[in-house]
Amino acid sequence: MSLNNSNKNWVTEICTASGSAFSLAYTEKLHDEQSSFQHIEIYQTEHFGRLLMIDGYTMLSQKDNFIYHEMMTHPALFSHPKPRHVAIVGGGDCGTLKEVAKHHCVEKITQIEIDERVTRLSEQFFPELCTANNDPRAHFEFCDAIQWMQDATENSIDIVIVDSTDPIGPAEGLFKQSFYTNCLRALRPGGIVVQQSESPLIHWELITQPMQAEMQSAGLDCVNTLFFPLPIYPTGWWSATLATEKELHLVRDKQAKALNFETSYYNYAIHLGAFSMPSFLKTKN
Amino acid sequence: MSLNNSNKNWVTEICTASGSAFSLAYTEKLHDEQSSFQHIEIYQTEHFGRLLMIDGYTMLSQKDNFIYHEMMTHPALFSHPKPRHVAIVGGGDCGTLKEVAKHHCVEKITQIEIDERVTRLSEQFFPELCTANNDPRAHFEFCDAIQWMQDATENSIDIVIVDSTDPIGPAEGLFKQSFYTNCLRALRPGGIVVQQSESPLIHWELITQPMQAEMQSAGLDCVNTLFFPLPIYPTGWWSATLATEKELHLVRDKQAKALNFETSYYNYAIHLGAFSMPSFLKTKN
Repeated sequence: MSLNNSNKNWVTEICTASGSAFSLAYTEKLHDEQSSFQHIEIYQTEHFGRLLMIDGYTMLSQKDNFIYHEMMTHPALFSHPKPRHVAIVGGGDCGTLKEVAKHHCVEKITQIEIDERVTRLSEQFFPELCTANNDPRAHFEFCDAIQWMQDATENSIDIVIVDSTDPIGPAEGLFKQSFYTNCLRALRPGGIVVQQSESPLIHWELITQPMQAEMQSAGLDCVNTLFFPLPIYPTGWWSATLATEKELHLVRDKQAKALNFETSYYNYAIHLGAFSMPSFLKTKN
Repeated sequence: MSLNNSNKNWVTEICTASGSAFSLAYTEKLHDEQSSFQHIEIYQTEHFGRLLMIDGYTMLSQKDNFIYHEMMTHPALFSHPKPRHVAIVGGGDCGTLKEVAKHHCVEKITQIEIDERVTRLSEQFFPELCTANNDPRAHFEFCDAIQWMQDATENSIDIVIVDSTDPIGPAEGLFKQSFYTNCLRALRPGGIVVQQSESPLIHWELITQPMQAEMQSAGLDCVNTLFFPLPIYPTGWWSATLATEKELHLVRDKQAKALNFETSYYNYAIHLGAFSMPSFLKTKN
């Protein structure tokens, strides 16, 4: 079957590394803008709700972003005894911020996004992701996160969540040792860096393992990968890496078991299961 | 980006239920045949190895089929105290048979595939899936599995693995109560039916839940879903359902922990984690 003969409009992301492409049928292109940093498009799709594309890559859809945002936050937040200050690097759509804000122990959330337009457009087109934007704990910095982290006060942050685009273009420096070194300096003892770490099937040797090496040379010796489905990303299978100086534990297990907020994907069993490492990745380590 | 402008040849499956499409770049079409039952195509893709398509739907690729075949077999086989006779319904590519044959306690494997051409073509184009075809325990029946199961000897099978296409066309009857009733009659006490049960994100209410209801009306009261990534299937996220009369347990946990054969995806932690139910599916039950 060819997309051409289907009588639908399709928005497509081609993934060169895997020779694959993912397409969503759309009914309307809602927005198209070249910001100072990137090309931002928003589509109304047939079955995945609204879709955000940046520079031709799918960023999020209303149908499946909950999996990504919950898995980028709750496993790390429940693995820290008392996360008070969480810094979100990137995350301009505010979906990660919304999940972090569900943890009452968090006193301050700083979101450092280079492109303010992503946040403004998210407020307009994805308001359900922006429900914590007016939370008094939320602080927005629209600047280069690499510089921000270099200037951050030592021992001031508990968790850094790197919710970035792929390590090409502006986000490349977010996968490098110098950035992780600055994160570690800004972190209080027991701090955690969370980094989205691409597809286990096609990016493991290309991106995930080199990234882990950068983390470890920065002193983040313990890297733990968790896995989750992410239908709109290449291969539909994604990972996040939690990096720490010492071994990671699910410290707040009671709170993870008896969640006092709503989630759509995350729960205690999912948390435990997500860290299971497929055999073919074990042998690659 | 449009597939047309990419200077590549693409083979595409459109999934109407999700308004999505998945494409793989290919270098050569290796085979195209209308068998007595279906349209079979085989492609040499750029990065996913060879690809089998039936009636325009992706069936398997050399890159990712290991996840599907391992998850359709090992969780069930380790949950049965002594699986001696395993029946595979469909599974013409023989990948499931190959995984079942890894269990030394299995004495007989019967594969009931309606279309012998699928098996013959798999022997030719996917020989790595057919390494157990000459195993003396393997028996091939090329006939309608619905009829075969109706005629099967009572109390003769320990596990039925329904490795079928989607519940449209010839495979529709494999998702129905009458078929499950015949399975249960053919099963010895403690038997298990495994059924591939589509995408948790788009087929849960359309297919998985109605299928569970059919299982339960047949007397298979306990339905357990397990989840795994499957990049070439719609949404890249798939499920299998293990149905039993009484509660399912990982009976042979020692053997699952200390695997005496090689796997690429399955291991003990993966087994335990795969049964974790995402929150949004719990509320739908």
